[in-house]
Amino acid sequence: MSTSVPNITIHWLESSRAQRIVWLLEELGLDYKIKLYKRNDHKRAPDELKEIHPFGKSPLVELDYGAGNTKILAESGHIVNYLIKHFDHDGKFKPANEDDDEQIDYYIQMSEGSLQPPLTLLTIMEVGDSKAPFMVRSVVQKYNTQVRETFNFPEVVRILDKLEKDISAAGGSYFVGGKLSAADIMLVYPVAQICFNSKRCASAVDKKKYPNLVKWSENVLNSATFKKSVQKVEEQAKGKYDILSSK
Amino acid sequence: MSTSVPNITIHWLESSRAQRIVWLLEELGLDYKIKLYKRNDHKRAPDELKEIHPFGKSPLVELDYGAGNTKILAESGHIVNYLIKHFDHDGKFKPANEDDDEQIDYYIQMSEGSLQPPLTLLTIMEVGDSKAPFMVRSVVQKYNTQVRETFNFPEVVRILDKLEKDISAAGGSYFVGGKLSAADIMLVYPVAQICFNSKRCASAVDKKKYPNLVKWSENVLNSATFKKSVQKVEEQAKGKYDILSSK
Repeated sequence: MSTSVPNITIHWLESSRAQRIVWLLEELGLDYKIKLYKRNDHKRAPDELKEIHPFGKSPLVELDYGAGNTKILAESGHIVNYLIKHFDHDGKFKPANEDDDEQIDYYIQMSEGSLQPPLTLLTIMEVGDSKAPFMVRSVVQKYNTQVRETFNFPEVVRILDKLEKDISAAGGSYFVGGKLSAADIMLVYPVAQICFNSKRCASAVDKKKYPNLVKWSENVLNSATFKKSVQKVEEQAKGKYDILSSK
Repeated sequence: MSTSVPNITIHWLESSRAQRIVWLLEELGLDYKIKLYKRNDHKRAPDELKEIHPFGKSPLVELDYGAGNTKILAESGHIVNYLIKHFDHDGKFKPANEDDDEQIDYYIQMSEGSLQPPLTLLTIMEVGDSKAPFMVRSVVQKYNTQVRETFNFPEVVRILDKLEKDISAAGGSYFVGGKLSAADIMLVYPVAQICFNSKRCASAVDKKKYPNLVKWSENVLNSATFKKSVQKVEEQAKGKYDILSSK
């Protein structure tokens, strides 16, 4: 496979982990196309995405090196690792030392391993809350509320508590090494987009407890590159897609 | 931090992702201590684990370099990456080339990113099935069954379908490069232990559809090092802990 920069397409699903990849593409100064997908009535990805990759999830990144030489990247953490490894030509994301490199790997794994599952489960329960047959809906909602309160919320709060300490210890601006890294790229979705800017876990998250994390969140969402990434999607979405999962 | 081999302790929780780390420690030929933890009545990790790491999950690996110099590793994928990077002195896990290295990263991320969440949710629903108040238990069980059938099972089956193709294309023995890698270490828990050897998703998994994956599963579980890892835990567990999540 050539080491030249391929034609890049990001398969972007609304209200998904995909916006952070658009952000990374902006940070790397790459050209790319965006293909938009809408969630179906059950808040799931449409079957169309399964034609790109069998799991039918998003983000997916398609790298077209020409002459039928195409590579599909799946899994957020792997996409981030791959794009930085191959296309960070200016060394913007290069860790200063081995410790920073390992810390970044920890946050990449933690973002999907510990933090994302209780947040994804909230979406599944939202569907249950609204789709359960009328006769049993109140029982289902009560059950889901209990799962949220005994499982999801304490799990999320425990993680945010640690991240507040981490970001404070790291100086407040970024998670690792005082500069933007893959850790920030990965955490923008679960922390900034979901925990601090959506209704999904608003009742469990007391923003006053997380002054540094909230500040980091505002800074990354308001950075020129993140805003550019949203603008790029907006241009195509024309108000028909939920970009920031802020519902 | 010294590059010498530290005193290693693995904080091992029953029915958890921890056994694969014991397996890796065996593969690397390292000495280690095991500290065992029992799940509580709600199948959650005990609070004791929060004293080691604030998320209170397992596996956790404690590296004691002496003179109060201790490091705690968390997140399965990060633990695997760290242990191999620092302690694979014979290059047993060294990928043959860049493509293999990237493929391994994909499986590490996929194991926790796409495959583990629908499996973990099955455990949460099992608790709901049994702990819901008697008056509403049948409604909760019916709701959980529906979530399993519309969300978890199709998700798991889709992943197993792809993994069957992957392992067949890779020659059947291992996932990447014809030799044991971090991909196999990560996948042993969700695929071999849970999908093929527990009751948790037995009704959804038709083993006949996965001849190569089942064979891989049997081979890794019966490998001398995996069996040694189980034996090491058994010696301490004395029948009081669930080692293989095979319930």
